[in-house]
Amino acid sequence: VGAGKVASWLDAGARVIDMSADFRLNDPALYPRWYGREHPAPELLRQAVFGLPELHAGELPDARLVAVPGCHSTAAILGLAPAVAADLVRGDVVVDSKTGVSGAGRSPSLGVQFSEVAESTHAYSIGGHRHSPEVSQELGRLANGRAPRVTLLTHLLPMVRGILASCYFDLASSLAELKEAYEEFYEGQPFTKVVPDSPHTKLASHTNLCLVNVAAQGDKAIVTAAIDNLLKGASGQGVECFNIAFGFDRAEALRGPSQWP
Amino acid sequence: VGAGKVASWLDAGARVIDMSADFRLNDPALYPRWYGREHPAPELLRQAVFGLPELHAGELPDARLVAVPGCHSTAAILGLAPAVAADLVRGDVVVDSKTGVSGAGRSPSLGVQFSEVAESTHAYSIGGHRHSPEVSQELGRLANGRAPRVTLLTHLLPMVRGILASCYFDLASSLAELKEAYEEFYEGQPFTKVVPDSPHTKLASHTNLCLVNVAAQGDKAIVTAAIDNLLKGASGQGVECFNIAFGFDRAEALRGPSQWP
Amino acid sequence: VGAGKVASWLDAGARVIDMSADFRLNDPALYPRWYGREHPAPELLRQAVFGLPELHAGELPDARLVAVPGCHSTAAILGLAPAVAADLVRGDVVVDSKTGVSGAGRSPSLGVQFSEVAESTHAYSIGGHRHSPEVSQELGRLANGRAPRVTLLTHLLPMVRGILASCYFDLASSLAELKEAYEEFYEGQPFTKVVPDSPHTKLASHTNLCLVNVAAQGDKAIVTAAIDNLLKGASGQGVECFNIAFGFDRAEALRGPSQWP
Amino acid sequence: VGAGKVASWLDAGARVIDMSADFRLNDPALYPRWYGREHPAPELLRQAVFGLPELHAGELPDARLVAVPGCHSTAAILGLAPAVAADLVRGDVVVDSKTGVSGAGRSPSLGVQFSEVAESTHAYSIGGHRHSPEVSQELGRLANGRAPRVTLLTHLLPMVRGILASCYFDLASSLAELKEAYEEFYEGQPFTKVVPDSPHTKLASHTNLCLVNVAAQGDKAIVTAAIDNLLKGASGQGVECFNIAFGFDRAEALRGPSQWP
Repeated sequence: VGAGKVASWLDAGARVIDMSADFRLNDPALYPRWYGREHPAPELLRQAVFGLPELHAGELPDARLVAVPGCHSTAAILGLAPAVAADLVRGDVVVDSKTGVSGAGRSPSLGVQFSEVAESTHAYSIGGHRHSPEVSQELGRLANGRAPRVTLLTHLLPMVRGILASCYFDLASSLAELKEAYEEFYEGQPFTKVVPDSPHTKLASHTNLCLVNVAAQGDKAIVTAAIDNLLKGASGQGVECFNIAFGFDRAEALRGPSQWP
Repeated sequence: VGAGKVASWLDAGARVIDMSADFRLNDPALYPRWYGREHPAPELLRQAVFGLPELHAGELPDARLVAVPGCHSTAAILGLAPAVAADLVRGDVVVDSKTGVSGAGRSPSLGVQFSEVAESTHAYSIGGHRHSPEVSQELGRLANGRAPRVTLLTHLLPMVRGILASCYFDLASSLAELKEAYEEFYEGQPFTKVVPDSPHTKLASHTNLCLVNVAAQGDKAIVTAAIDNLLKGASGQGVECFNIAFGFDRAEALRGPSQWP
Repeated sequence: VGAGKVASWLDAGARVIDMSADFRLNDPALYPRWYGREHPAPELLRQAVFGLPELHAGELPDARLVAVPGCHSTAAILGLAPAVAADLVRGDVVVDSKTGVSGAGRSPSLGVQFSEVAESTHAYSIGGHRHSPEVSQELGRLANGRAPRVTLLTHLLPMVRGILASCYFDLASSLAELKEAYEEFYEGQPFTKVVPDSPHTKLASHTNLCLVNVAAQGDKAIVTAAIDNLLKGASGQGVECFNIAFGFDRAEALRGPSQWP
Repeated sequence: VGAGKVASWLDAGARVIDMSADFRLNDPALYPRWYGREHPAPELLRQAVFGLPELHAGELPDARLVAVPGCHSTAAILGLAPAVAADLVRGDVVVDSKTGVSGAGRSPSLGVQFSEVAESTHAYSIGGHRHSPEVSQELGRLANGRAPRVTLLTHLLPMVRGILASCYFDLASSLAELKEAYEEFYEGQPFTKVVPDSPHTKLASHTNLCLVNVAAQGDKAIVTAAIDNLLKGASGQGVECFNIAFGFDRAEALRGPSQWP
């Protein structure tokens, strides 16, 4: 809807849960590079709360403006946050993110046609995806600024829903210690679950779940995180933020059952 | 067919182009770990030529035994060989490999059913895929033993054909120099082509092509390599090896047109 | 579970809602032809209520044994019932039924593998599908025995869920009269809805809905009926029968939202 | 390109093989109803040869203007021609035609987006598809004007390529006699083959084949015909017509192998 309209709503006393990318980055200096223009209302960026409840639930009840994160960012941050917070990442991080087509929105274009997408996969935004700075920002907060460099490469898959973020980094500890860090970090979380096997994205489809698996090959940690890009990666998380912001049960309207297949 | 049968064929004077994994690894010590048993004919491993023509075309005319590589290995090796050969890789390598379902073969099992695979993706063989040691072996040869450590994680995608290997490593040079190394390495190759954009796997489907794109995010190199796992990743490459081994035109029976969509 | 076990449960006073094909046909003489054997408990067939609530809701509260219909039959019967009941069908009926793969169950077999099913469609059970006699039986009841001959041909489609039954018959009236018959027949039904356009099966997916469109080309009526074969075509309808049989709200546990895409 | 341009090319002495719908119908009176306008060059309709080689190969060498048929028409006509020519059809015909998405062309629109099409099927052009009059015209020629009424309903399937036309009509003979009529009609045809089982469309994909199966349920004949809508249903058939028109081998450039899966 545009930052100007949001500003006028806030002036009128409304609280805003914004699904767009307009207020996700706190640093106005990042907008020209990633969005091609100066931010029109940089003063709002300071008050925006990043709408990822696993990290910011405590700030949401008082938030005037919530910036719900992007779909790739949600999976990548939830896949990496416990390791970064526990300082268990050595060196940099590679996130190979795979998404269904619905992430591209509903506007007709050649690139999302069935005949182009079916029976194929490819990387896109190879030079860098706009969700990258969100990931760096949030991991930086968790690491008190010593966040690892993140390389995020996004891929389009022939499926409608789902994101799988495969995260790679060198272990600064044992795998057991890493797993424990994830278990602790997500203990009691209603939607983000540590699971024993690498998750199938379909297990999260039609739900607000994020399923996270922690593994390793030698001393290379491999964390895979799966969400439904339209729910935990978008409107579901928006509803979750709304529920917390306004004092509803966090799972209100988000209790649909997992279904297979 | 088993190593014993192959040995008897070789004794009888036949030349063998083997599509299985039986003779791909030169070091017999690797078999117990990756294939769960001692190699039954380790003396044959020394004479086996690794059937990747881009690396071993010169040895094929005299080869008695050719071991055609696996599908993930073909994409990964072709995605990394020029960089390794030119010593442009700093540190280790991550290969995030994505495959269509036909790579699993045609035996019925729950994991390859349509209803399980459609609308979903997941990682598998998280602890390490059998194709990993092939990749390390061949990159080691190119690097005179100083090959980078390779982490290979394989993913199943809801498509029939195609592999996309997304390869990540730190640049030991400029991106321009890296691109040049790939252009030179594959100059004149009939099937492996350096392409300007990250390839869609479907562009290689129903052909023996390998399409390679070279890019970077900052100083992290990103190379994506696409093949049809049933052709360049399997029988097509077997035919290519046969053609070279027996003096036919290398593209004989492999000239089918690219088709889209 | 077998008719014998069901009989023992009934003897013990239980009420049984059976999801199998064991008790769907009232006429024991039909079993040898369609199921290859004599029915082991023909006396139970008389008391079995056909579990299609749109036709038999009134009998369910007193039913001891409910035989929930097959997926193809549910779509075909709901697509034809109003026309047959109002005597608006002239001549015979063709039902071209299209199903997703999950209808075949979860046992591994070549025919339901992703690589066989994807990017293809084909007819199966060309000589006649087992669900045919259920359709004829129920339409016969509605027509006081003067039911039209039904040709049912089933097709496998490359999708997981969903059935679309395309029904063709000669109009014995105007199209307007036909539409009115459907509107009246399904008025007040919680799950079966007459819709203005030919339904996309996905609009019914993950719900217990049946969406029915009534149209014509000249004086050939064309009725298309869409369901999720795993819900209205199977377990969802089973729950619906249970709810009615035991006095719960008919939609209990079946209120999940439609989702798109 | 438009009928005017075609006329000028013909005037200049060129021979034209037209892939559009501009010249498929010989009767100018049909254009307003099916294409919404008067035909701009009705005099050309008389000389246009309908480019279905199984019916018109003999006219192609002398043709100045060839109108290659539509994809649904090709499958429907090839599925019905032998029965109509042998006068084995009693009453009218229903053709339930199922197509992959590529038949809609490559222009971006909501209806062909991956997220709309995947995991779903629906009927379209319910009131009548533009390919219907082509089918009636060609069957009428074969029947000396006594062609059966044809109801053609088209469906969109979640696949890229392929058409399956399921044809239903009352048998005016035995099934054996019907099968024999098809075998004779297509004897020696290079691309249209009578096959023993209902064809999977994928068996025809990437080829110029039409696979036809003849079966029955009681005295209702069921003929299923499969093509690749982009080859036998479009450009492949155009090339086939060109080859015949200009004296090349009919299969020139159309010899690509069937591939599975």
